[in-house]
Amino acid sequence: MRGAVLYGPRDVRFEEREVPTIIKPTDAIIRISATCVCGSDLWPYRGIQPIAQPTPMGHEYCGIVEEVGSAVTSIKPGQFVIGSFFASDNTCPNCQIGYQSSCQHAEFVGTAQASVLRVPLADGTLVPTPDVPSEDLIPSLLSLSDVMGTARFAADAGNVRAGSTVAVVGDGAVGLLGVLSARQMGAERIIAMSRHPSRQKLASEFGATDIVTERGDEGVARINELTGGIGADAVLECVGTQEAMMQAIRSTRRGGYVGYVGVPHGVELNSEQLFYAHVHLHGGPAPVRRFLPELIDLVWNGKINPGKVFDLTLPLGDVAEGYRAMDERRAIKTLLRP
Amino acid sequence: MRGAVLYGPRDVRFEEREVPTIIKPTDAIIRISATCVCGSDLWPYRGIQPIAQPTPMGHEYCGIVEEVGSAVTSIKPGQFVIGSFFASDNTCPNCQIGYQSSCQHAEFVGTAQASVLRVPLADGTLVPTPDVPSEDLIPSLLSLSDVMGTARFAADAGNVRAGSTVAVVGDGAVGLLGVLSARQMGAERIIAMSRHPSRQKLASEFGATDIVTERGDEGVARINELTGGIGADAVLECVGTQEAMMQAIRSTRRGGYVGYVGVPHGVELNSEQLFYAHVHLHGGPAPVRRFLPELIDLVWNGKINPGKVFDLTLPLGDVAEGYRAMDERRAIKTLLRP
Repeated sequence: MRGAVLYGPRDVRFEEREVPTIIKPTDAIIRISATCVCGSDLWPYRGIQPIAQPTPMGHEYCGIVEEVGSAVTSIKPGQFVIGSFFASDNTCPNCQIGYQSSCQHAEFVGTAQASVLRVPLADGTLVPTPDVPSEDLIPSLLSLSDVMGTARFAADAGNVRAGSTVAVVGDGAVGLLGVLSARQMGAERIIAMSRHPSRQKLASEFGATDIVTERGDEGVARINELTGGIGADAVLECVGTQEAMMQAIRSTRRGGYVGYVGVPHGVELNSEQLFYAHVHLHGGPAPVRRFLPELIDLVWNGKINPGKVFDLTLPLGDVAEGYRAMDERRAIKTLLRP
Repeated sequence: MRGAVLYGPRDVRFEEREVPTIIKPTDAIIRISATCVCGSDLWPYRGIQPIAQPTPMGHEYCGIVEEVGSAVTSIKPGQFVIGSFFASDNTCPNCQIGYQSSCQHAEFVGTAQASVLRVPLADGTLVPTPDVPSEDLIPSLLSLSDVMGTARFAADAGNVRAGSTVAVVGDGAVGLLGVLSARQMGAERIIAMSRHPSRQKLASEFGATDIVTERGDEGVARINELTGGIGADAVLECVGTQEAMMQAIRSTRRGGYVGYVGVPHGVELNSEQLFYAHVHLHGGPAPVRRFLPELIDLVWNGKINPGKVFDLTLPLGDVAEGYRAMDERRAIKTLLRP
């Protein structure tokens, strides 16, 4: 089997990897229908988050179950399934309360840019679709594995309600799907912060009512202006940098909510600033599993089309070009077909 | 008129100050029935928060209205009133949403350790009691001006519900009243973190079900143990130091809530740590005004007795001893009678 392995900054290779097999009785083996490159893959790809050794890549996946371990009861070979990047038992107290990405037995699923994948804790992790989907649904179903589920969590953490005014910091796939989530949850006004025409266009298609191109102080001032000097009810932070986080906090109204899902890199929050901002702060690695049943239903019934974020589709063998295109911002998100 | 003036570290003096008068038509002048020393007064008293010049002190007050400005309509001379340390118009968008301490016209009321006080924005700030209270109610009514209102906000920010497990970091007046607030809001289990016998005793009187004497890592481990390895649903942070804040975050269950009201001093939050903690964070300077009507009602009807936190009562002239007793932790909170 061949799959993606990162060797160092901007050096991702498509090479022979061992075919995964059942290790624990709770595992499942799935044949990948589609996988993709995540914005968060770019952190190690760019060398900002160094790797210690050649590292298999990929944490977004959907596909057909080939084999299950002897303890797996709810997943069967032949089913089309989607799982999150964190395998979870879905029964521990953290899972029960909806934080499956903090499952007491969580395992990161990090080898999905390949043709075959081992998924631990299959019963808790994988959610089957009603049937094997048609080709046109694959991109949207794949997006549920991370970016759409993450965006949905951001909107949830941001307490988005019917009638809310929402601002979204970040115009990557998660930010754009944050717009879609906010729309789907009934937000009245959705301000997308983006400077890229193709992303602005997609944000508008997903339901953005306003586009703000300014950043930093000017971005905050613009949001303030658009909200009558008050700030947005909810701001979704979908980047993970200090600038993005502060922009989110400062764009939120007093008593409003910041839902943050951008994996933070070197972000330090000055507690005094936070104290006087009077915002609610919640986020973290998205418990995608919580939202999978609901999101599968919405995709299956044609209510949402999050797969639109994939603006580049490549054979898995061209994975290196998939990373390059995203690194250079030529593509929003690359879908890979084994 | 004489009042308290801070000159430098541990140098508070009782000296002649100008009698305040109506400056703006929205002002009121009140004759102080009781005022007190706040835990937050100890920051400048100890020199941790340096002052630039001799500074009048005090931000907690209740008393009889003597005079109102020409624009004041809802407050009348002769009424007994309570106000917050932030004067607020109670009509701006921030006030309307319940964040009066972030009022767009907020003014800090900082000269209350005196016999007479000017309160700006009287209509929005002051809440009268049903009648002039009897002497025994004065301490509890005074506590609503800050510490009880702040504790109530902490419990609100911490999403305390009927049946919640709540931990309280800090055994000062706010922490102890956090215990009272949690009890009053129906928490089932309330863990007070305290190493001082007299404060432990008061915490138990206020409704604490458990006392934890450990701090830092050991404190976190003990909370973990008491909550079946999960953490508390809500943790109220009532100190404002790095250690207290991290103790609060790490004692909270995934998806749980940290309500923080300790005025932060040099606290930096590592966003990565926060990200993986999966907690909700909310706090800030308490919008005490939001809770005043409800809390006055509870005190007036004998449902709560937050005045118990005052374990030292002095004539205002002995204000220096009032500070000393709290600085040396001989007193939880000093009430001062002009």
